[in-house]
Amino acid sequence: MNDDSSVHRIAAVVRKHVSDLPPGTRLPSTRELSRAHGVGPVTVQRAVAALVSEGRIETRPGVGNFVAAPRLSRRRDVSWQAAALGPPRPGVPEQAGSGLRGVPDDTIALHSGYPLPALQAGSLVAAALSRAAKDPAASRPAPSMGIPSLRHIFAAELAGRDGCDVGADDVLVTSGGQAALVAAFRGLARPGDTVVMESPTFWGAIAAAAEAGLTVVPIAARPDGPDPDELERVLTLHRARLVYAQPTWHNPTGAAWSPAARSAVLDVLRDHGAFLVEDDWARDLTLEGRTPAPLVCGDPDGHVVHIRSLTKSMAPGIRVAALVARGPALQRIRASRWAADLYVSPVLQLAAAGVLAAPAWQRHLVRLRRELLGRRDALVAAVREHAPLAELTAVPRGGLSLWVRLPDGTDAGTVAARCLQAGLAVSAGDEWFPAEPDGPFLRLGFAAAPPDQFDRAAGILGRVLDGPQP
Amino acid sequence: MNDDSSVHRIAAVVRKHVSDLPPGTRLPSTRELSRAHGVGPVTVQRAVAALVSEGRIETRPGVGNFVAAPRLSRRRDVSWQAAALGPPRPGVPEQAGSGLRGVPDDTIALHSGYPLPALQAGSLVAAALSRAAKDPAASRPAPSMGIPSLRHIFAAELAGRDGCDVGADDVLVTSGGQAALVAAFRGLARPGDTVVMESPTFWGAIAAAAEAGLTVVPIAARPDGPDPDELERVLTLHRARLVYAQPTWHNPTGAAWSPAARSAVLDVLRDHGAFLVEDDWARDLTLEGRTPAPLVCGDPDGHVVHIRSLTKSMAPGIRVAALVARGPALQRIRASRWAADLYVSPVLQLAAAGVLAAPAWQRHLVRLRRELLGRRDALVAAVREHAPLAELTAVPRGGLSLWVRLPDGTDAGTVAARCLQAGLAVSAGDEWFPAEPDGPFLRLGFAAAPPDQFDRAAGILGRVLDGPQP
Repeated sequence: MNDDSSVHRIAAVVRKHVSDLPPGTRLPSTRELSRAHGVGPVTVQRAVAALVSEGRIETRPGVGNFVAAPRLSRRRDVSWQAAALGPPRPGVPEQAGSGLRGVPDDTIALHSGYPLPALQAGSLVAAALSRAAKDPAASRPAPSMGIPSLRHIFAAELAGRDGCDVGADDVLVTSGGQAALVAAFRGLARPGDTVVMESPTFWGAIAAAAEAGLTVVPIAARPDGPDPDELERVLTLHRARLVYAQPTWHNPTGAAWSPAARSAVLDVLRDHGAFLVEDDWARDLTLEGRTPAPLVCGDPDGHVVHIRSLTKSMAPGIRVAALVARGPALQRIRASRWAADLYVSPVLQLAAAGVLAAPAWQRHLVRLRRELLGRRDALVAAVREHAPLAELTAVPRGGLSLWVRLPDGTDAGTVAARCLQAGLAVSAGDEWFPAEPDGPFLRLGFAAAPPDQFDRAAGILGRVLDGPQP
Repeated sequence: MNDDSSVHRIAAVVRKHVSDLPPGTRLPSTRELSRAHGVGPVTVQRAVAALVSEGRIETRPGVGNFVAAPRLSRRRDVSWQAAALGPPRPGVPEQAGSGLRGVPDDTIALHSGYPLPALQAGSLVAAALSRAAKDPAASRPAPSMGIPSLRHIFAAELAGRDGCDVGADDVLVTSGGQAALVAAFRGLARPGDTVVMESPTFWGAIAAAAEAGLTVVPIAARPDGPDPDELERVLTLHRARLVYAQPTWHNPTGAAWSPAARSAVLDVLRDHGAFLVEDDWARDLTLEGRTPAPLVCGDPDGHVVHIRSLTKSMAPGIRVAALVARGPALQRIRASRWAADLYVSPVLQLAAAGVLAAPAWQRHLVRLRRELLGRRDALVAAVREHAPLAELTAVPRGGLSLWVRLPDGTDAGTVAARCLQAGLAVSAGDEWFPAEPDGPFLRLGFAAAPPDQFDRAAGILGRVLDGPQP
C-alpha cells in the first residue's frame, strides 16, 4: 500500500531527527508534522506509534510526544534461579520443531510445515475476519465448548462427507490442533501414564505428552498402519490405555492406514478399553485419490478422540481446531481445555465458521490440492535427478512433505546444517522420533517454497550428500 | 445491519420450505433463489450457509444443495470409559467460573467479569483486525516468543510508564492471561510442588495450578497486601518457591498492595530464592488515583514473573497477553508455552499491536475508566440502599466488581441461586477460595450490566437476603 510507504518515510525522517536531540525534548505536534511533510495526520500518527514501539519516542497522554531517554540497565543477577528451578524437565525441548523456525529471506524453505501465503485462503480469510470483528458475538467471551454455529459446521462436515455419527454436542473448539492434543492428553491420562505413539510421529505430540508428564512408548509406523498384534502387545506390556496416531497422511511419512488396519486397530481399542487420539491434521490435504473416512466414524462408543485442525489449509492466523469426543472423556477434556485458556477467541471462531460456510472455501481447497500435487511431483523429480542418494521412502498421496532416507552412517543433523549454510533449509528427521531414530532421515516440505527453486534445492542437497561425511 | 435481517428472512423462508420436502430433494440454485426473493446472491449464500450449519441442507460441491437427511443415531455405549478414565482428578472443576457462564437475555448480569460491548474498544479493534488480516505477517506462523513489534510495545509500556527495566527480549506473548498463568506454573514448578496464593483469589489461577499438579497453600488476602511474616512462615513450612498474586486491584476484593507490602514481599522472595507470578490483570482498570507500578519494576533479578492481559480492557476477541520474565525462568516458561499451543495467532497479535499503538487507545481507556467509576458508584449506592445486609468489604479503587459479605450463617450458593430465579445473576464467593471460604461472600460486577438496572438488581438481592435462610 502507498500509505505504508509514507508511514515508513515519515518514521525514517523523525527517527533521524530524534537521534540528534536530547531526551525529554518535545516533538512538534501531529498537525505540524503533517503539514511539514505533506501527509495526512493518520500517517503521522502511525509513524509516531512505530517510533514509540521502538522506544525512541515516549507519549505522555494529553501532553505530547517527547524524545525518550535511552534505557540503561543495571546488570541483572539471575544466578539464584538455578537452585530454584532445579534440573530441566525431561523430554520437553526448549524450542519448537525446526519447521516452525524462521530462516533468512534468501534461504529456500523446504523445512517449513506451512503453505506459502500464495496457497492460503488469504482474501477469504480477511473478509471473514472483518465480518467477524463486527459480529455481536465477538464482544462476548465465547462459550466454553465453542461457538454453536462453528460446532455445527464441524459436525456437519463429518456427518455429511463421511456419514459419521457425530453431532454438534460432541464437538469442542480449541485454539488450534496442538491445544487440542494437550487437552486430550491431560483429560484422558495422568502424569506417569503411558501413551503409545507411532515412530516416527509429529514432534508436537511428543512434546505435548512430555508436558503432560506421560511416558511415550513407540510402535513402528508402517506404510499401511501399525501391526495390530504389535499394538496389542505394547498395550498389554505397558498397561497403556492411550494411543496417539495420524491415520491419514501421517506426518512425516505421508502414509495412510489401510481399511483393514483401521478396523483391526478399532478392535484392539475395544478389547483393551483404550482411547486413541486421531490427529486428523491433513484432512483437507489429499493430493490424489480419496480421503479415507476418519477413524472416529467407525467408532460410536467413544474410543476415538478426533482432532481436526484448520491452520494448514486455511491460514496460520486462524488458530482454531475441533476436537470430537463422547461421554465422560469429553467432559474431562473440556475441563482441561478451559483450565488452559478459558475460551477460544470468538473472533477467530466466527471467522473460521464464515470461511467454512463460504462457497469459495471448496474452490480454495480444490485449487490448493491441485497446486500441492504439482509441487509434490516437481520436488520428487528434482530429488530423483539431483540428489539420488536421498532415497524417497514413498511418494505421499497427501500432506505437505517428502520423507527421505539418507545413506546409512550419515548424520541427518550435519546434513541439515550444511544445507543451511548453502542456502537450503530442511528438517533433520530426528525430531520426529519419540525414541532412537531408526535411521538418518530428512523431511522436505514442498508447500513453503516456490517450485522454481526445487531443482536448485535438490542440487544443494545432492552436493552435500556427495561430499565427505563426518 | 439490514443485510443481516435479509439473511435471517431468507433463511426462515428456506427453512420452512425444506421442512416439507423429502431428504435428497435438490434446492433451487442461488441465482433462482436470489431472483425469487429479490435479494443479492451473497445474501442467499449466507442464508444457505446458516441452514447447512443447522444440518438442514447439505451441499455437494459442484452439484448443488439438497435437503439433508435427519440424523439417526444408534445408541452409544460409553460405559467402558469409567474404568479407562479412573477417578476424576482432584481440584479441576468441570466448568469455568460462574463469571464466564451465559445467562438468559432478560437476566441482570452482575456475575460477568467482562465489560459490556458498549464499554469495549469495538471499532478500534475491528479496524485493527481488518488491517492485521492483510498484513504479510498474518500469513506466517508467529515466532515462538511473539511478534517483535508487539513485544516492543509491551516492554515500552512498562519502561515508559513505570520506568521499569524491561526490554522486548524479556517479553513472551501468550494466548491470553490464563495461558500465561498455565505456562508460568508449568515452567517454574513440577507436579507435586507447592504454590502459595492469597485467599480468596482468582478461580482461574486455582484451576491452572491444579492442572499443573501443584498443591495450593493459601495465605490470607489483606487490604494492604499479605503479611510478610506470614508469607515467610508459609514458604518455609511448605518448602515452597512459588507465589501467585494480584497486587493491583485484586480479584475479587479490589485491594491494592501498599508500597511497604510490595517492598517487604520482594525482600521475602529474595531471601527465599522464590518466584512470584504477578497477575496484573487490571492494569488498565484503575478507577481512582494512581495505578501502582507493577511489582516486576522493583525486581531486576527475575523473581517476579509479570503477566499483563488485554482481554478486559480491549475486547474478549483479542486473546493476547504478555508475560515478562528473566533468565532461565523465561526459557522454561517459553518451552511450556510452545508445547501448549505452538504459537499465538499472528492476526490477533498484529491487531493487539495496532490497537495499543493507536492514539485512540488512550482515549478509549480514559472513557472506560470514567464509565466504570460511575458504575461502581451507582452499584455501591444501590447496594447500600436496597441490600443493607450485604456488607461492602471495601469500595474498590480499581477493577470491575464489588465483594460483599453476607450475614454469618447465610449460604452464598443458595443466595446466588435464589437471585438467579428472580432475574439477577451474581457469583457466589466460594469459587474464589483455594481452601475453605472464611465466610459467605458474593461478587457483584458493575461492568457487564447497564447501570439503570442496578437499583432493581440490589432490590432483588435485598429481598432474597431478607427472606428466610436455609
